[in-house]
Amino acid sequence: MKRYPGNPVITTSDVPPSRPDFKVLGVLNPGVARLGDETILLLRVAEQPAFEDASVCSSPIYDVASGETRILAFHRSDPGLDVSDPRVIRTKSRNYLTSMSHLRLARSLDGYRFAVDAHPFLAPENEYETFGIEDARITRIDDTYYINYSAASNAGIVTALASTRDFLHVTRHGNIFHPDNKDVAIFPEKIGGRYYALHRPSTSEYGKPEIWLAQSPDLLCWGDHLRVASVREGWDSARIGASAVPFRTPYGWVEIYHGATQENRYCLGALLLDADEPWKVLARSDRPLVEPEAFYETQGFFGNVVFSCGATVVGDDVRIYYGAADESVACIDLTVGEILGNLGVDKAVGGNR
Amino acid sequence: MKRYPGNPVITTSDVPPSRPDFKVLGVLNPGVARLGDETILLLRVAEQPAFEDASVCSSPIYDVASGETRILAFHRSDPGLDVSDPRVIRTKSRNYLTSMSHLRLARSLDGYRFAVDAHPFLAPENEYETFGIEDARITRIDDTYYINYSAASNAGIVTALASTRDFLHVTRHGNIFHPDNKDVAIFPEKIGGRYYALHRPSTSEYGKPEIWLAQSPDLLCWGDHLRVASVREGWDSARIGASAVPFRTPYGWVEIYHGATQENRYCLGALLLDADEPWKVLARSDRPLVEPEAFYETQGFFGNVVFSCGATVVGDDVRIYYGAADESVACIDLTVGEILGNLGVDKAVGGNR
Repeated sequence: MKRYPGNPVITTSDVPPSRPDFKVLGVLNPGVARLGDETILLLRVAEQPAFEDASVCSSPIYDVASGETRILAFHRSDPGLDVSDPRVIRTKSRNYLTSMSHLRLARSLDGYRFAVDAHPFLAPENEYETFGIEDARITRIDDTYYINYSAASNAGIVTALASTRDFLHVTRHGNIFHPDNKDVAIFPEKIGGRYYALHRPSTSEYGKPEIWLAQSPDLLCWGDHLRVASVREGWDSARIGASAVPFRTPYGWVEIYHGATQENRYCLGALLLDADEPWKVLARSDRPLVEPEAFYETQGFFGNVVFSCGATVVGDDVRIYYGAADESVACIDLTVGEILGNLGVDKAVGGNR
Repeated sequence: MKRYPGNPVITTSDVPPSRPDFKVLGVLNPGVARLGDETILLLRVAEQPAFEDASVCSSPIYDVASGETRILAFHRSDPGLDVSDPRVIRTKSRNYLTSMSHLRLARSLDGYRFAVDAHPFLAPENEYETFGIEDARITRIDDTYYINYSAASNAGIVTALASTRDFLHVTRHGNIFHPDNKDVAIFPEKIGGRYYALHRPSTSEYGKPEIWLAQSPDLLCWGDHLRVASVREGWDSARIGASAVPFRTPYGWVEIYHGATQENRYCLGALLLDADEPWKVLARSDRPLVEPEAFYETQGFFGNVVFSCGATVVGDDVRIYYGAADESVACIDLTVGEILGNLGVDKAVGGNR
């Protein structure tokens, strides 16, 4: 297991802002795909106004009627304001985000050196996306790349679906999971004639943010929701969610997922799901597969975070791309064998599959 | 518009507890159907242990492994405990319910005098139902009655689907909406070749509890989620949700919905939805259609609540059944014309439909 020595592979200085009066606060959590010889990253680019009065904190909001992004300003002296989390502005009645994200394309032939597009690939466009769109996952099924992403607004956080064949033209398919739901990872093939996706509802009263599975006839409508993995003591005690698109091994589906503690320390681990009955968890990482250790992971906009939305798998080689400290993109190379070793697969399921 | 003079039509004393050591705390929020000449109510029956040490408050929990309901006891002296809401026990790590609900059948020939079954029709059975099942809605499509209900557990609140043809045999169809989601009302016919349902996600960070619409090819998998009605100033300022199954009028679909203030005063109002494009709200009640006024509505287990899960519609006559003060079942007779009048339909959509 080896972090790329040139990490981070993409930093904020590599990304031109989408408009001259914005600055790029973070480039993070890319969806990942292979297109021909290229590695494609669909980056989340988080921006905020470049010039801001120190007495206010502001939230960029997309205005559907005008088609423009406007800046909502909150006076820091307001006693009802909570800005203790640098990502969120909490008021008495509503929460807002300190930045707005869009999705930006980056391409590479070697998987390490990326050319970042000058303009957004997908940007907020409707009433469910007014606070921004985030954290794409890309699932290739036949020749179509399905892109799901989180959309935030005062309607909550939904997961929306889009698709492309060439990463030039893209079609939107609406909201596939109602609020609050993020961290959706669609399986790359049908299982028993049905599509499957991992998803992460955030419940408000009785549940915890955990990993669920849904099935679908058409990728648009989802049902038969089952919880497949729960929080537990240790590195993934406060919340867990799917990260990369699952990939097949002889032992079952490997899902790289993220878990966080109450202190918001985010690590990556793995789940091994049954090949034919993916709601059955055969093994789960006792210790993290990747945890924040490098300086670009422990320090940054939001330190102690490694958060992945995708990986490339070529033969036995897995390259996980991840957001480091909510600020830059890094990658780490490892083998399927190393992941199975972390999962203790030899002990857990033996050689009988 | 006239409340039945014999209200409440069903009280806790009409309902035998499901086991001898339980007492019935409330009978409320019935799903409603017509079966031949009968009016069928699918009551929510909320129970708790009959005999309880005053120093503890307890939560009945269904245990999947043993198939039995066990009592979780919390010491009232625990400083981390919040029992200010009589419905909920809040601990530092989890919330629990003070009662467990199941669904019970009641039948009537005149719609006022009901015979209540001695045993549950549907009771908790799986890991999503361990805190109880609640608030059925019944949608008849052809000869099948589809029953959706809220299921509560430490996984959150999901909406599950079951079906019956005779209210004797029932089949379960799994979780159709992931947590948190309740107040689902399935339309009684396809529109443009698709099934539709109103639903009510509860979001945890950025949204409010509001009314959404989803569509489905098969009643099991749901997608294309759209928000159709939001909270607003007044009687429905804190949360809103679908109540009765929508019914057709010459002006569009009428949906009887509930709205509450921050002080948890629950009223009923109406939405008029476009006949062919049900995500379009043509009219909405400025003032409530029904609000807590009678003594059995203002006083009880949780006072100032009228909450409906169903109505019968025969010609121009609408009879809304509703939970009163979270404790008993009442009904009110009104006409389609009165509902359209409350909606100001003549002004809003004129006679052009």
